[in-house]
This record gives sequence, structure tokens and C-alpha cells, in this order.
Amino acid sequence: MSKEITARAEDYSKWYNDLVVKADLADHSAVRGCMVIKPSGYAIWEKMQQALDKMFKDTGHVNAYFPLFIPKSFFSKEASHVDGFAKECAVVTHYRLKNDGKGNIVVDEDAKLEEELIVRPTSETIIWNTYKGWIQSYRDLPILVNQWANVVRWEMRTRLFLRTAEFLWQEGHTAHATAEEAVEETRRMLDVYADFAENWMAVPVIKGVKTANERFAGAIDTYCIEALMQDGKALQAGTSHFLGQNFAKAFDVKFAAKDGKLDYVWATSWGVSTRLMGALIMSHSDDHGLVIPPKLAPTQVVIVPIYKGDEGLAKVSEVALQIKAKLQAKGISVKYDDRDTQRPGWKFAEYEMKGVPVRIAIGERDLANGTVEVARRDTLEKETLSITDLENKIEHLLQNIQDNLYKIALTRREEMTHRADTYEEFKKLLDEKGGFIYAHWDGTSETEEKIKEETKATIRCIPLNNVQEAGVCIYSGKPSTQRVLFARAY
Amino acid sequence: MSKEITARAEDYSKWYNDLVVKADLADHSAVRGCMVIKPSGYAIWEKMQQALDKMFKDTGHVNAYFPLFIPKSFFSKEASHVDGFAKECAVVTHYRLKNDGKGNIVVDEDAKLEEELIVRPTSETIIWNTYKGWIQSYRDLPILVNQWANVVRWEMRTRLFLRTAEFLWQEGHTAHATAEEAVEETRRMLDVYADFAENWMAVPVIKGVKTANERFAGAIDTYCIEALMQDGKALQAGTSHFLGQNFAKAFDVKFAAKDGKLDYVWATSWGVSTRLMGALIMSHSDDHGLVIPPKLAPTQVVIVPIYKGDEGLAKVSEVALQIKAKLQAKGISVKYDDRDTQRPGWKFAEYEMKGVPVRIAIGERDLANGTVEVARRDTLEKETLSITDLENKIEHLLQNIQDNLYKIALTRREEMTHRADTYEEFKKLLDEKGGFIYAHWDGTSETEEKIKEETKATIRCIPLNNVQEAGVCIYSGKPSTQRVLFARAY
Repeated sequence: MSKEITARAEDYSKWYNDLVVKADLADHSAVRGCMVIKPSGYAIWEKMQQALDKMFKDTGHVNAYFPLFIPKSFFSKEASHVDGFAKECAVVTHYRLKNDGKGNIVVDEDAKLEEELIVRPTSETIIWNTYKGWIQSYRDLPILVNQWANVVRWEMRTRLFLRTAEFLWQEGHTAHATAEEAVEETRRMLDVYADFAENWMAVPVIKGVKTANERFAGAIDTYCIEALMQDGKALQAGTSHFLGQNFAKAFDVKFAAKDGKLDYVWATSWGVSTRLMGALIMSHSDDHGLVIPPKLAPTQVVIVPIYKGDEGLAKVSEVALQIKAKLQAKGISVKYDDRDTQRPGWKFAEYEMKGVPVRIAIGERDLANGTVEVARRDTLEKETLSITDLENKIEHLLQNIQDNLYKIALTRREEMTHRADTYEEFKKLLDEKGGFIYAHWDGTSETEEKIKEETKATIRCIPLNNVQEAGVCIYSGKPSTQRVLFARAY
Repeated sequence: MSKEITARAEDYSKWYNDLVVKADLADHSAVRGCMVIKPSGYAIWEKMQQALDKMFKDTGHVNAYFPLFIPKSFFSKEASHVDGFAKECAVVTHYRLKNDGKGNIVVDEDAKLEEELIVRPTSETIIWNTYKGWIQSYRDLPILVNQWANVVRWEMRTRLFLRTAEFLWQEGHTAHATAEEAVEETRRMLDVYADFAENWMAVPVIKGVKTANERFAGAIDTYCIEALMQDGKALQAGTSHFLGQNFAKAFDVKFAAKDGKLDYVWATSWGVSTRLMGALIMSHSDDHGLVIPPKLAPTQVVIVPIYKGDEGLAKVSEVALQIKAKLQAKGISVKYDDRDTQRPGWKFAEYEMKGVPVRIAIGERDLANGTVEVARRDTLEKETLSITDLENKIEHLLQNIQDNLYKIALTRREEMTHRADTYEEFKKLLDEKGGFIYAHWDGTSETEEKIKEETKATIRCIPLNNVQEAGVCIYSGKPSTQRVLFARAY
């Protein structure tokens, strides 16, 4: 195999980094913390976007676009938002460069902005400043808008897809006449995210609500979906925020109700990002490379011919192209790789590295037998199948792979989910097994922070419809009414 | 009508501004020069993106994503590129804000970047710096990559869609082993743009090559498509550049040919932007509002019920929804507007303003007759049609509107295209008629600039396959071999 990667058992973190680069998904750029998303990686992101965009539209949302830049003063308008976001930001201070006469390009000090502009880390402020002009009465509500955009948060320690200074995402920003409607929207979009994670990404998730400490800066409640990676660390895969009237008050956005009374508008925001690429990779891939669930695979089936000479290739190609056409007619995306510059073994390893779900190999001997060799990427199993009705068998196999990946991920998560009743047990589980730990907590931010300091574990969420159960906090020994979900996280 | 706009004859420029705002396409934002693209406008842009993206993929291209920021020093690497682009740029100098202790958010001077970052005005430099790592041998070529992104050019005078500080676009960046192949690619993408403009936007264009003065900074040749707006001003609707080896040399990108010899890689770049929205609006719209060609209309047909009382609505809705379903089965996008908060007349004006190509009105009397009233947006003509086979009639009508809009635009362009043989005639035509003017030019930048200074007219292009014809330059009287295309332009 031309491209080798570190084994997971040896160094999981290095395995991830190797894989992202060797599978041609992304790479570091010349700009600190910013990534280049390569065509193979971007094609998966495009599939994600298409599926999500359709789900957003099916739930009544429309797309729009708001400015990249936000005036600095906007960040001061919502008291808690400013603490959360007016920190590690890219700040635009000038709008012109000039030649200094010695052949150097320098910033033109005469072109200093009166007010600095911040490259958006998230768009609540600029969007609510805009909504002020869109909303007068209840007739203008609800506003159900989504934006696909790039955002920048100046991260000191970056990892491809998981944490980068610039990343791509979608951010929904909705406006409602009542708190109930806004909460309903918040929960609806959480369900959309969970549906996408489980049925498209084949990643099981736990839906829950964040503690005050982990809440979005400016939210009343932050809902999230939490996934568990193969190494036992959690990953927050999407968030949906009920913002109350906080941003409406900060930007003075009122509406006249049917009875003529003026009230502030209720808000939500919700987003997922290219971070999902990291979650996808870390959920399913193995030491041979990437594993992509068929529903998100840009190429679902690759056909590789095995032959001698031009005449052999011509014979094999005739059948291969018939198979390709039949698969395409089923809506399956197929690549026929008849390049003569690489050997079949090299191609097999290449498509394993790139995570193509199904590989079909056709040799000259197969022609006589009316068979092909079919290999599935998830289990690496091979079988010889008759060409008759092959398209239906492959269609079925793709669905089977999709289901199997989800089942494996779910089984793993269940095996890696534990309960701890004492702090000692909690720390032992964290160090020896990792994974999710359900434990009692006294409900205070103080305890939460102490546990985080001492163990690096955080409360991922309080699961929705959580079982109520009397107990004592593993840290403080104070009474508790329910277990919450702890884990070390990405 | 609730939303009135200035008439074109009165003030074309004001008409445009009114229309963009009143048809809910876009609006100014709190950030100087940056626009908000509203849902109605963004939906059209999405249709454009989908059509273009498919054309790019059908010609072998893939999408990728490169960083928003470009290190300042990159701009100095290509000598002519720096003059063109290292000017009016957004410059990021700091990466942190802080609270000054008096409740103000200020830039943290301790977080000054060692090297300033420029918000990309175009991405040749960062992309060719990346390609250096992707290209070793002829086997790595061609690279056929496109990026959908936002870019920033600090414009002093801005107009919604036509010229904004931030705009959305796509930029193709390809790498080739030979000059011939790169030129072929440049021309292929010019053809794709012309095809899109004419067959989707219904905007006839003239394909040509720019003079040295108007060339992209860093290109050997810039090809363009030029359209003529209703007011007789030209609009450059897309450009495709043959970049030679300029960027490969600037970023030291060499490849080993089959014979092992090292050579610099050949490049192209090509782009269209949200400026196309301006071209679309100014080509077809009228004093009643927006006119959108059916192939780019997010809603192609609107059905408006005319009724008295809930019972009347129920009867009309039954038939309306049947019609809607039949149209949708044909792949036509339909909206049934049964809101009871607005009268039919208000709705008619609203959909005229928003440019929905076909409006179907159904009244209670129509039910007895088995008819509907069909109004087409392009000509504002109405006719009564039998419900029988209505979906096929509407499908035909939409095609007819698409063709008619192109025909009208083409006829207008032909009527507004003139020849001038003297400078006096040239200036008279410009002032009295506007439009395209074919005139002889001596081929020097000096003459081109003088004409521009004195008349504000520029050479839009030297049309491809231009008729060769001996003559004398209208300005200098020097000999000329061909007429070139002049106009005042957006």
C-alpha cells in the first residue's frame, strides 16, 4: 500500500491526522490555523450540505446571506454574548495597502477604519440588527432563515476539521412571536440534527441540554447532540439555542401583536459545521483508512478491471460499463477506474484509504463465469456474486452497510457507557475506559468546574427525558435528583 | 399597489435601487459597502449556483475550499497581480479583543499579528501556494478545481449586487501541463458562461478578449462575456483568464513531464459573481417590478384564489390544489397563496413585483366554466384557459416566456448596437443613444485611455472571430485592422 497510516491502537490522535491527510480530505494551509478542504473532503461536505439543506427547507426555512464583517460595537450590546465571543477574533483595522517606495507592500496608515470590524465568529448580532428593519408586526413572524457561511474564531490549538480558525457552517436564526413557538423551533432543529447524524452519518447521538457553564453566550438554553468517538472521547456534533428575548432586547426588535401590544421578539439559533467531518471520520474509519456511510459517499461503488493487455481490457470494459450503467440507473454513484497507470492492488488500497463503500473487481475469468468479486469497505469482506440482478444486490448491500455502520457505532457507544457512584470510580473509569459516564451531580457550576479541573471531564449534557433518580453528587456528596452525562471531549 | 417604484424613463438608476429593495432581493447593511442578500434574492442566486455547479461538474471540475485569509507577502510575489489587487483590501492586523476595564471592548495591542492577513479579493496566490504541494509530475495534472466563496474588495462607491465590498462568487483555478490545454480550458469556461447567460439568464452576450488595459492583473489574456442593459450601458458578466506560467513562476510550481524534464505549470482562472443578479434584474425587469426567466425563478407559478367566505375558498381550493399537484408532477415549482390577510389585487401586485413568471387566478365563477385566468409576467397579457390539459399549456408557456425574454433582450441589443466612423459620430452616439459602438482603434493603450478620459467609454472587448476590416482609428487617425466594441459600462 502506497499510503500508510499510524494504527489507532498505537496513537489515535496521530492516526486521525495521518488519515485526514492521506485520504486527501484536508491539509494545513500557509495561514496559521486555517485549513484547505481538498476535493475528496469537500465532496463529502457537499453531500452533507445537500441533505441538511433539504431538511431545513422541508421544515419551512429559507436561505439568506449576511455580511462577513461585524462592527466591534455590536458585540457589546448583548451582555453575556460579549464575554463569549469578543475575544479571539480576527480584527480588520485598515482597508488599504500601499507600496512604500522601496518595493514593499505595507499597510496604509491613512486608511484606518474609524471602528474596527470583526470577522464574524457567529452572526447573531449582525442578523438581529438586520431583523430590526424586517419586523414590525406579528404578520412579519416567524422569520425562518438559515445561512451557509464561513466563520472565524482565533483558536490557538487547531486540528483539521475539529478545531480550525476558519471553518464552514450553517447558522439558522429564527424570530417568533411567542416563547413557546421559539422553544418548539429549538427542539425541532435539534431533532433535525439528530436525524441527520443517525440516518445519514450513521452516528448515534444523545440529545440533551447544556449546563449553565456550557451554554452558548447569550442563550437561555442550549440543546445539543453528543456523539462518542472510537477512542472514548465525546464530540459535540450540533447545537440549537433558545435565545429568549436577549438579542431582541439588545437590538431593540419589537413587534405589534394582534391586539396591538408591543413586545420583544423571541429568538433561536442553531448550527452545525465542518466539525461534522471530524465526527464522521472518527466514528467509522479504521487502520486501512476512511470509511464513509453510503448515503454520504460521493462515490458509492468503484469498479476495477483486472486484465492483461488492451484486448483483455476491452472485453472486461464491455461488461463493466454495462454494470456501471445499471447501477447509475438505480441512482447509485459509480466510478469505473480503467487507468492503466496503476495496478489493481494499488487501486484496491487507494479506494480503501478513500472509503468507497463497495468495490467491484472484474477479471477476464469472471466473464466466463458471469460473476464479479464484491468487497464491502466496512467489514472488508469479499464475496463472488453472479452478474444477474447485480444492481439490486448492490443497492441492498449499500443499505446494509449504512445500517451496519450505525449498529456498530451504537454497540460501541453502549459498551463504552458506564455509571459511576463514587468520585474514585468516576476517575478510574475515565482513565481506564473513557467513554460516557452517567453520574450524580449537585447542580452547581462550582462542582462542575472542580471536576473539570481535576479530571478534564465535562458535563456533556443533561439528557432529554432523563430518568429522575435520587442520589448524591459524586464530588460534593450533596443531594442530586438525576445523573448527568460526563465525558472527556474533543 | 402597495410598493411603488420609480419609472425607468424617469430615473433608471433610482428604478434599479428601488426595485432591488422593494422586490426584497437585497438591502444595505450596517457595514459600509456590504449587503444583506434577502431570502427572495438568495433563492435566485441558489438557482444560478445549482445550474453553474452542474455545468462545472459536467466539464470535469470538482469543488474545494481555500482559506479566507492571505498573508500579505503573497501579494508581492506576482509582479502585476500586486498592482491590481494589493490596494483596497480589508486588512486583519490583530487577533484578540479585550475589555479595557471601563466597560469598553478594545483591540488587544498584545495580539498584533507578525504579518498582516488580507481578506481574499481573489485567491490565485493562496491557491498556487497550495498547488505547489499538490503537483510533482504530469500525472498530477490537470487540476480542475472550483471554489464557491465570499471575497472582499474595498469599493468606495457601492451599489447592491453590482458593486459591493463583500460579494459571493465562484472562482475556478486550473493547472495544466501545456499552454494549449490551458488556453482550451480558458475558452471552454468562457463558453460555459455564455451558455449560462443566454440559456438560463436569457441575456445575450458578446464573447471577446480584453485589451491589455482591461486585463486581469497577472493574466496573459482575459476573455469576457459582455451584456447590454436596458439603459444602453454594458455590463461585464463573467471573465476567464489564461494566466500562462505567471503564478507557477511566482510560487515555484514545476512538474516533471513524461520525458522527465521540469517545466512550470500552466494556469487558468475564471469567475462569475452575485453581480450576475444585477445583470439579470437590469436585463428584463420593468416598471411593475422584477421579471425573472422561468429557468431561474424559485417560484415559477403562483395560484391565487378569488372567493367569498370560507365555503367559497374551500370550493376553489379543491380545484387549485389539483392544478398545483399536476404542475408539480411536471417539475414546475408552484405556490398556492390562500392567505386570507390580503386581497387578490394586492397579491397580483406583489407577485408582479417579485417577478413570478406565471400567475393563475381561479374564481368561483371559473369553477362552473372549467377555466382559469392565466397571466404571464413578461408581457402582462392575460388569457382564459380551460383547465383541461392545463399543466401542458403552462409548461409550454414557461418555455415561451424564457424564449421571449431572450428574444426581446437580443432585439434590444441589436437596436442599440451602432457603428461610428468618426470621433464626433462616436461621441454623439454615446450621448444620444448609448449602447454598443463598433469603431476602429489604433491598438494603443494611450488612445484607449484618452477616449476613456474624454467620453467615459471603454473598450469592452475585441470580439472573438472579429471581422477583419481595414480602417482608421476614430481618435488618432492611425491605421486599424478591425473594429472593437466600445460602451459606457457598469
